[in-house]
Amino acid sequence: MQQPTTPAEINQQALELHKKYIGKLATTAQMGKLHKALLPLVYTPGVAEVCRAIADKPELAYTHTLKGRTVAVISDGSAVLGLGNIGPLAGLPVMEGKSLLLKEFGGVDSFPLVINTQIPEEIITFVKQVSPTFAGINLEDIKAPGCFQVEEALQDIGIPVFHDDQHGTAIVVKAALLNAAKVVGKPFNTLNVIIVGAGAAGLSVARMLLGLECLGKTCTLLPKVVRVHDVIVVDRIGALVSGRDKQNMYKQSLADSSNKRMLSGSLIAVSLGADVIIGVSGPGAIASEIIQNMAKNPIVFALANPTPEIDPYLAKQAGAAVVATGRSNMPNQINNVLAFPGIFRAVIQGKLPRITQQMKQAAAAALANCVKNPTATNIIPTPFYPGLADIVAKAVLGASNQ
Amino acid sequence: MQQPTTPAEINQQALELHKKYIGKLATTAQMGKLHKALLPLVYTPGVAEVCRAIADKPELAYTHTLKGRTVAVISDGSAVLGLGNIGPLAGLPVMEGKSLLLKEFGGVDSFPLVINTQIPEEIITFVKQVSPTFAGINLEDIKAPGCFQVEEALQDIGIPVFHDDQHGTAIVVKAALLNAAKVVGKPFNTLNVIIVGAGAAGLSVARMLLGLECLGKTCTLLPKVVRVHDVIVVDRIGALVSGRDKQNMYKQSLADSSNKRMLSGSLIAVSLGADVIIGVSGPGAIASEIIQNMAKNPIVFALANPTPEIDPYLAKQAGAAVVATGRSNMPNQINNVLAFPGIFRAVIQGKLPRITQQMKQAAAAALANCVKNPTATNIIPTPFYPGLADIVAKAVLGASNQ
Repeated sequence: MQQPTTPAEINQQALELHKKYIGKLATTAQMGKLHKALLPLVYTPGVAEVCRAIADKPELAYTHTLKGRTVAVISDGSAVLGLGNIGPLAGLPVMEGKSLLLKEFGGVDSFPLVINTQIPEEIITFVKQVSPTFAGINLEDIKAPGCFQVEEALQDIGIPVFHDDQHGTAIVVKAALLNAAKVVGKPFNTLNVIIVGAGAAGLSVARMLLGLECLGKTCTLLPKVVRVHDVIVVDRIGALVSGRDKQNMYKQSLADSSNKRMLSGSLIAVSLGADVIIGVSGPGAIASEIIQNMAKNPIVFALANPTPEIDPYLAKQAGAAVVATGRSNMPNQINNVLAFPGIFRAVIQGKLPRITQQMKQAAAAALANCVKNPTATNIIPTPFYPGLADIVAKAVLGASNQ
Repeated sequence: MQQPTTPAEINQQALELHKKYIGKLATTAQMGKLHKALLPLVYTPGVAEVCRAIADKPELAYTHTLKGRTVAVISDGSAVLGLGNIGPLAGLPVMEGKSLLLKEFGGVDSFPLVINTQIPEEIITFVKQVSPTFAGINLEDIKAPGCFQVEEALQDIGIPVFHDDQHGTAIVVKAALLNAAKVVGKPFNTLNVIIVGAGAAGLSVARMLLGLECLGKTCTLLPKVVRVHDVIVVDRIGALVSGRDKQNMYKQSLADSSNKRMLSGSLIAVSLGADVIIGVSGPGAIASEIIQNMAKNPIVFALANPTPEIDPYLAKQAGAAVVATGRSNMPNQINNVLAFPGIFRAVIQGKLPRITQQMKQAAAAALANCVKNPTATNIIPTPFYPGLADIVAKAVLGASNQ
C-alpha cells in the first residue's frame, strides 16, 4: 500500500521524478533494436520505396508511417492548469504528461508541441502546417476566447482538432452529473445548474449539459440528447444573460441559449435554489454560503486544478450531497484522462476526420454507464477502470456511424 | 548470415516492415508502466509544481522535460532523397527513419515533423514557433536555395538548427576524402576536386573541403583547417565561376572563393585532370569518360540516393582508384548517419546554442581517425563502429571549448 502523501510531498516527488528521467516521454523503435539488415529497410535505400508508394497513394501514410497511430498535443501555454499564462516552456510538463497518458491509457502514440505564439491566427497556421504528420490534434491549455476561434477554424483540415480543456472536461462533467443526479434522486432534465467560470471549460460544459452545438454566433439544439433543465454561467462580472454588456461572441451565443429566466447579477444571487454548482474557475470562487443557499442535496463539482474552488471538506460541511474535484487523491475525480485517451483511440481506429458533438455526447453516456450503482463517493470510474478507453472509443465510433 | 538481397527485394521488405509496424517510431514512458501512485506525479496535481519551477527558472526545462534530450527532424518534403519534391506526407518515412537513427545510434530522442509549406519565410516562422519544445532542430530534405535562407535565419534562436543534407553530408565526405587521399598517396592540400551538383549538399561539401564559413554573400576562410587545393562546383549550366550569370547568391559567393583558375564550361571540360569527383546530383550525372580523363588514381564519390551518379562497377572499370556511394550494401558508404547522431548527442550533452563550422570540421577529422589503415574499400567507418556517436560528440564538444 502507498503511504498517504501531503500536497507538499507530492510536489517534491513530482520534481524529483521529472529530474530523474529528464521529463517523461521518450521515443523508441517500433521494431526493437536496429541491426545491420534492418538499416537499408528503415532508411535509404529501402525507405525510398515507401516514399514513392505514399506519393502515389497518400492514404498509405496512415498504414505505413506513424501518422496512422500518432496525435499531437499542442499548447501555447496561455492557460495552463490553474496556473494561467505561464508560457510554452513552463507548460511543457503538462503536455508531456498528456502525451504519456494518451499512450498509457489509450494505446495512442503522441507527441507534445509547445509553441512560441499566442496569436490565434498564428496558432491556426501552425496547426495546419504540422497536420500532415499526425492523425489528430489535441489542443491544450489555450486561453479563451482565442481557443474557440482556433478550434472552429480547424474543423475542416482533414484530421480532428479537439480542444481537451473544453470537450474533455465537458464529457467527464456530463458523465459525472448523470450519475450524481441519480445519487440525489433528481431527474437529469430537472436540474438547474450554475457554472462558475466562462472560459474554455465553462462554456463547453454549459453546451454539453444543454445539448448544444455552437459555431461562432449560433447555437442549435442537438437531437436525441439528455439535457439539464437550465444552466447559468457566471463570469467575473456576473451571470451571462442575453444582451448583457461585456460578453464576447461565444458568451453571447451561450447566453442566448441558456439562463431561461434571464437572471442577471452576482453568483450568490443567481445560485439561490440551484441544484448543481460547477466550478471551472479558480481557488476561492465558491463560498460555503453559496452552497448553503442552494436547493436540497446540492451537487458541487469544484474542478480547478491544482486547488479547487472550495475545499471539499468545507463543501460537505456546507451541505453538499455529492462533491467532485479534479484531484486524484480524493473521491469522484473529474479528470479529462477518463475521456481523451478513448476519444483519440477512436480517432486512430476510425481514421476520423473530425470529432462531432454527437460523439462527445456518446462518450459521456458510455462513461456514466461504467458506474452501475452510483453513490455519493462513486459517480465516475477511475482512470484505471479496465478497458475504459475501449469503451469510450466504441461509443465514439458508434456515434460516427449515425 | 543474412542472404544477399536485390534492390527489388529490399524495396519489398521495406514496404512490408513499414506496414507491419505502421511506420517505425513510437512514443513511450521514460519511467516504465504507469501505476496509480505515479499518476499525481506525472500529471495533475504534482505536474503543476514542475510548471511553476520552470516558470521561475526557464533553464529547468532542460533538466525536467523532454526538451533536455529531444530534437526535431523537420522537413517540407521539397527535396526528399533523390526523389525530388514529393511533399511532406510522402517524405514522412524518411524523417521517421532519421528520428529512429538518432535514437538508435546517438541515444537522442527525436520526433519527425513534416510541414505543409515550402515557403522559406513560413518554414522559418514554424521552426521559431516550435523551438521551445526541443533542444535542437535537424532540418531535412529542404530544397536549395531556400534551405540556405532558412538555416541562416535560424542561427540565433537559442537552439541549434542543422540542415543535415548540407552539413551531415559535408562532414562525412570530408572524413572519407581525408582517408581516400591517403589511399592514393596524394596530400589532401594538393587535391583538385570537382563537385557535380550545386544544391544543398554540393555547396556545403565545397565549403567544407575549402574550409570556408559562408553567410549570405560572404565566405571567409576558417583558421587551422586542412583544406583541398581547389574545388570546382558544376551545376546544370556548367562550372560555377565568379561573375557567371544565373548563379543565386549562394552559388555566387562560393564561386568567388573557389575555382581559382576561373574555368568555365561543361563538366567534361572542367574535370580534365581532376583528382576527385563528387556526385551530389542524380543518376547518370557522371559518365565513364569523365573518370577516364581525370588525373591518375581518381577518387569517385557517387552519392545520389537511392541510385548513384554512376554505377560503382563502371566507375572502377573507368579507372577509379577509390569509389564511395551512399548505399549501405556497397563498400565505403558515405552516410550521414555517421555524423548526425554524434552531432546531436553533443547538442544534448553540451546544451549547445548552435553548431559552428569549427565543430563540423572537428567531427570530420574525428570520423576519419576511426579508420587507422585506410584501403580502397575502407575509407570510412560503418554506422555500427563501436562508440562512434560518442567519438563524434566528443570532437564537437572539444571544438565548442575553443
